[in-house]
Amino acid sequence: MKNLKSISLQVLDGELLILDQQMLPDTENWISVESPEHMIQIIKQLKVRGAPLIGVAASLSLALWSKKGETLSGFKSVAEQLRASRPTAVNLMNAIDRMVAVATESSMNPQQIADKAVEIFEEDVRLCLQMAQVGEKLIQDGDSILTHCNTGGLATVGIGTALGLITHAHRTGKKIHVYVDETRPLLQGGRLTTWELDKAGVPYTLICDNMSGSLMAEGKVDKVFLGADRIAMNGDFANKIGTYNLAVLCKHHGVPFYTVAPQTTIDPSCSDGSGIPVEMRKEDEVRGVFGDFGAIRWAPEQAPCHNPAFDVTPVALLTGMVVGDQFHSQEDLMAGKLNNHFND
Amino acid sequence: MKNLKSISLQVLDGELLILDQQMLPDTENWISVESPEHMIQIIKQLKVRGAPLIGVAASLSLALWSKKGETLSGFKSVAEQLRASRPTAVNLMNAIDRMVAVATESSMNPQQIADKAVEIFEEDVRLCLQMAQVGEKLIQDGDSILTHCNTGGLATVGIGTALGLITHAHRTGKKIHVYVDETRPLLQGGRLTTWELDKAGVPYTLICDNMSGSLMAEGKVDKVFLGADRIAMNGDFANKIGTYNLAVLCKHHGVPFYTVAPQTTIDPSCSDGSGIPVEMRKEDEVRGVFGDFGAIRWAPEQAPCHNPAFDVTPVALLTGMVVGDQFHSQEDLMAGKLNNHFND
Repeated sequence: MKNLKSISLQVLDGELLILDQQMLPDTENWISVESPEHMIQIIKQLKVRGAPLIGVAASLSLALWSKKGETLSGFKSVAEQLRASRPTAVNLMNAIDRMVAVATESSMNPQQIADKAVEIFEEDVRLCLQMAQVGEKLIQDGDSILTHCNTGGLATVGIGTALGLITHAHRTGKKIHVYVDETRPLLQGGRLTTWELDKAGVPYTLICDNMSGSLMAEGKVDKVFLGADRIAMNGDFANKIGTYNLAVLCKHHGVPFYTVAPQTTIDPSCSDGSGIPVEMRKEDEVRGVFGDFGAIRWAPEQAPCHNPAFDVTPVALLTGMVVGDQFHSQEDLMAGKLNNHFND
Repeated sequence: MKNLKSISLQVLDGELLILDQQMLPDTENWISVESPEHMIQIIKQLKVRGAPLIGVAASLSLALWSKKGETLSGFKSVAEQLRASRPTAVNLMNAIDRMVAVATESSMNPQQIADKAVEIFEEDVRLCLQMAQVGEKLIQDGDSILTHCNTGGLATVGIGTALGLITHAHRTGKKIHVYVDETRPLLQGGRLTTWELDKAGVPYTLICDNMSGSLMAEGKVDKVFLGADRIAMNGDFANKIGTYNLAVLCKHHGVPFYTVAPQTTIDPSCSDGSGIPVEMRKEDEVRGVFGDFGAIRWAPEQAPCHNPAFDVTPVALLTGMVVGDQFHSQEDLMAGKLNNHFND
């Protein structure tokens, strides 16, 4: 039905294929997802990642599984486990809530459940294109752009959020250059964003996360674009660890700082950033690197480590936010416009 | 004659042993240095590192080699190559200049050359202790301190600069906790500072470089102490890449930010930071990690990378500086006191 970068779907044939992001950039390996439990495992191993993508992937796994004639209580139980597999990404929770609603309303009608999953899938593709069309106007010919983590076609089923906007600007003919933060500890920038920019033919330079400040001091960064894993109603947002460091550096250097996310990233239950839970991950991720590309530990075996997957950036450090088909300036956000727009 | 953490010297026996820092923390392996050319190779491979230590190590290798009856012109030629092996560390250049001066004045008298190398060695030990005694007063009981790179007994022949001060405060009975930046790309924090703090029994937590901002936002960092590779006369200084990011983060959060270095780190020929050359290193260091602990590349094989080894922090972001036996506040530095002190 669809065959995009990170997911392949044949709902009618009952097969869901997911690109194993742990094996990139050297190997493109597709995993056939057998069950929601298998999907939970894949999500926790970060073989599938990116807040919008995991929402879509989780929904599809539920849709395929429900064709086997499961009960509603069984559906709800496995949906709850899927919902909890990454605690910060609100898109996942939104998607699961919609799947549970249709399963309940339709009394477990497999076709209606599948239609809902496909709707969530297609909505993500459409939202990505909307964000790119709205946000692309923020990029001028000649811009040097810094980005963090991976927010491209690998993080969504569409062209991506912040990286989708960047590659869209390149496709429309703007001459841009991208600095890519490697994004320790899991190196989504070094492994995935570089891979996507290579494929898209966008000129880029990979840096370590601690090199961004000196680049800004040298005037080499015109703008920063990155994604969001959860947006509170006042415009505060959670995103990959290191986002907050960049926000402070941008403020100091007067570099515009934008986040780009679909509307499904907004959490109406969070009035501000203090309500966003931050997932803490294993200490081993900080003691070295490991993945399908290999494993190395360089720190002492018992070194105590701190490993938050995300940080929260206050709206006061944000220049503006592209949410779906809308651009909100910091002033709009501070005036509660995100709230108004969401309730429309 | 001396047997400290990172260097072992038997000048009379003609052997110089250097602890291979690339094999830490898992293996303690000592390299017997055969010649100044061998030392250059070891310096370039970062098996010996830390601005003060490489100055001492280079001087000792010249002293041992000169016992073989070399000519002054040969001495000067090899000294020049040693001097250029790391372009940012001014301590190395200072030490080499002193070695060339004594070789010239004494007409290649091996004993006088050896005495000078030992003088440089012992001076480093003394300067470290002075810095610790002066700087330790900046640390209060209960402080949570963040540090970057490695500035301990592995970076000097004494107890270290910033890390020497931290371990000294611990030894005097102050209850402190240290956050250690892993310090990409070469992971001196993750590999070496953790190893030293383990040995010293100081409680610590290892973090990735991009986690410092969120820790400061949570009020978990009371002070930052780190080293310097070169200090300009106005107080601007070069240090390991990532130092500038921390300086900006400290300014934003009102966290005191200190550098600690021996007087040999001052470069009177640099009036401000713009005169400090920054060493650019190989792109491979950013595409992955490699060392005696193993090698992994996670970025695309041809990914273009930016890899400055250092950045320059302006005095305006500095709370104060411990230089040898003196503490200089930002106000002192801006009033040219570093200049006055140096000329005394």
